[in-house]
Amino acid sequence: MNSILLRYAKYGTPSSTIEVARQALNSKLSANQILLKFLAAPINPSDYNQIEGKYPIKPELPAVGGNEGSATVLEVGSNIKSVSPGDTVIPAYAGFGTWRSHCVTDEGSVKKIPDNLSAAASAMLAVNPCTAYRMIEDFQKPPKGGWIIQNGANSGVGRAVIQLSKAQGIRTVNIIRDKEGAEKVKAELLSVGGDAVFTSSQRGEIEEFCRENTPRLALNMVGGRDTVQLLKCLGEQSSLVTYGAMSNSPMSVPFGLQVFKDITLHSYWMTRWTNKHARTESEDEMFGKLAEYFQTGEMVPTPHRENSFYDYSDALDNAFKLKQLFVVDKTLGDSRYQN
Amino acid sequence: MNSILLRYAKYGTPSSTIEVARQALNSKLSANQILLKFLAAPINPSDYNQIEGKYPIKPELPAVGGNEGSATVLEVGSNIKSVSPGDTVIPAYAGFGTWRSHCVTDEGSVKKIPDNLSAAASAMLAVNPCTAYRMIEDFQKPPKGGWIIQNGANSGVGRAVIQLSKAQGIRTVNIIRDKEGAEKVKAELLSVGGDAVFTSSQRGEIEEFCRENTPRLALNMVGGRDTVQLLKCLGEQSSLVTYGAMSNSPMSVPFGLQVFKDITLHSYWMTRWTNKHARTESEDEMFGKLAEYFQTGEMVPTPHRENSFYDYSDALDNAFKLKQLFVVDKTLGDSRYQN
Repeated sequence: MNSILLRYAKYGTPSSTIEVARQALNSKLSANQILLKFLAAPINPSDYNQIEGKYPIKPELPAVGGNEGSATVLEVGSNIKSVSPGDTVIPAYAGFGTWRSHCVTDEGSVKKIPDNLSAAASAMLAVNPCTAYRMIEDFQKPPKGGWIIQNGANSGVGRAVIQLSKAQGIRTVNIIRDKEGAEKVKAELLSVGGDAVFTSSQRGEIEEFCRENTPRLALNMVGGRDTVQLLKCLGEQSSLVTYGAMSNSPMSVPFGLQVFKDITLHSYWMTRWTNKHARTESEDEMFGKLAEYFQTGEMVPTPHRENSFYDYSDALDNAFKLKQLFVVDKTLGDSRYQN
Repeated sequence: MNSILLRYAKYGTPSSTIEVARQALNSKLSANQILLKFLAAPINPSDYNQIEGKYPIKPELPAVGGNEGSATVLEVGSNIKSVSPGDTVIPAYAGFGTWRSHCVTDEGSVKKIPDNLSAAASAMLAVNPCTAYRMIEDFQKPPKGGWIIQNGANSGVGRAVIQLSKAQGIRTVNIIRDKEGAEKVKAELLSVGGDAVFTSSQRGEIEEFCRENTPRLALNMVGGRDTVQLLKCLGEQSSLVTYGAMSNSPMSVPFGLQVFKDITLHSYWMTRWTNKHARTESEDEMFGKLAEYFQTGEMVPTPHRENSFYDYSDALDNAFKLKQLFVVDKTLGDSRYQN
C-alpha cells in the first residue's frame, strides 16, 4: 500500500521546498499499530513558519508538512483498545505531519474525537476552535451579556471566538484591518454573530463604543502598536491575551494604560496546552462541546478552499489570503494521482 | 497654634510652584478629632508628578504637597478609640498632604504603625518597603534560594527588594544604569545584600548569569526596551511585574519571548493596594514584618538627605538624584522659622 504525502527536506520558502512524495506502507499491522486514512488537513500559519525554519518546534528532516488534520481509523492491531475501525482521530501532539493520505502509527500518537463532524470541521478542530475556546474559558471569562474585544477578528480564531461567544450569550467587539473589501468582511462577521465590527482606523468610534460596552477580556493576534487600542478599550482589572503577532512588531504597552487600570497581560499558545492536557477529561469536554456547536450550526468551519495535494504550490502561496485545506479524497481522485 | 506647610495653588514645576505657608489650627479639639505632629515626609516621584498635574490623583487646589510621611499623635478628642497620644501614625490613603508640621484630622484618615521605627524609617515605610514587600509576596514568590531579577535596583524600591529578599533567603540579580559612579553603586548594592549586580549594558553577562540562576519573577521599574532584557532572563512560566516607567517609553514585549516562555505581565500600584486593604489584617501583618526587619537592621532606610521645609526648592530640584526627606524638627529649629 502506498501513502501519498507532502514532504520537505530543507527549510525554505514552502512553495519551492515542498514536494509530492510517495511512501510504501507495510500492509501487515503489528499488534500495537493502527492504520489511518486521513480526511483533510489545513495549512496553518505555524505550518508555514515551520517549513521556513522559523518555528520553535523543528521536526527532523526530511519531514511531512502539517500539524493539524483528521483521519479515519481503517485497521487496528490486536493489542489496540482505545480506538476502533471507523473512529475519527486527530494527532495527539504537534509535529505529526498531517499532509498525507495514509499512515501506520501507534495509538498513543492520536486521540479520538466525536464522529459527527464534517471532514473540514474535524480537520480544523484542534487549532482555531480550541484556541478560541481556551482563551474564552481560561483567563477572564465574561459573564452572559459581557463583552470581549478582539483584533484579527476575520482570522480563523477570530471567527471561532465570535461564534463561540454568541453561542454562550457573550458579546464581541471585533476589529479588522482597513483594506479593500472591509465593508464586505464587516457584514459577514456581523452575519456570523459579531455584535460590533470596526476597522482598526476607527479609533474614536471603537473607544466610544467601549465606554458604553466595556470589555474586560481582549484577544490580541496583531501585537505591536495595535495593542494600545485594545488596552484603551478595556475596563479596570481586565486581561489581555496575546496569541499572535501579525504586525511583526513587539507589543507596545504604555505604562499608565496598564498600571492604572490594572490590566494583566497573558499569552496563549495552543501547543503548550495540548502538550499538557492531551487525552485528559478537560480535553474531551472541550471537543465534546465544540462538536455540539458544529452539530447545531452555531459553529461553522472557517471559510476555506479545498485542494488536492498536487495543487500544493498554489495552496501554499495563498495560505495567508484564504484558509487552504488539503482533502485526501480530492487528491486520490486527482487525474495526476496514480497508485 | 500654627502649622507650617508646603503648599501649591496651581500645577507646574514643583520648585517654582511650591511655597512655604502658615496655617492657624484650632487648639480645642472636637470629640472626633485628633492632633498630629508630623515627624518626617519624603519627596516621592509621584508627589513630584502630582504637583506637575501629571498624576491620576489630582487634589483640590490649593493643596499641601506629599502623600507619604509619619506623625505622632499629640492629643485625641473624647470619642477617639483607635489611637492614643504618643502613637505613631501614617496617612490611611494617598492625597493627605504630608509636608506639614501639624494638623487636626479625624481618626479615619490615619492608621497606627509600630512605634519602634526611626523617623526616617516610619516616614518612608508606606511606599517603597511596602511596594517591595507586596511585589515579592503577591505574584510569584520565589522559594528560598530562588532568584528575583530587577532593574532600577538602586531606587528606594530596588534597595528594599534586595534587603527583603535577603532577609527571606531569596536571591537577587540587580540591574543598574550605566553612568558615572556605577562601580560604587554596584559595591554598595552588594554590601546591602544583592547577590549579583550588573549595569544594563552588560547584556551577555546578565543572560549568561541567568541561564545558571534562572529567575521566575522580574520587577520592572524602567519599562521601554529595557523590559526585553528582563524577559530574556526569565525562565518558563514566569511573572514580570511593572511598577514604573523611568524610560518614559511604552514597554516593548516581543511576541516569541512572552508566548513561548509563557510569561505573564502584571503591574503593581501601591495606591490601589492601599485603597483596598487600608487597616486590614494583611496590612497590619505587612507593617509588623517590615518593622521587625528595620529593628533587626535587615532593612535600613533608603539613603536620603534631611531637609528643613525652608530648603524645599533645593530639595525638589534634587529629588530624582537622591531621596529627599523633609524633617519637621529640623524645620522648627530652622533660623528662618518663627512661630
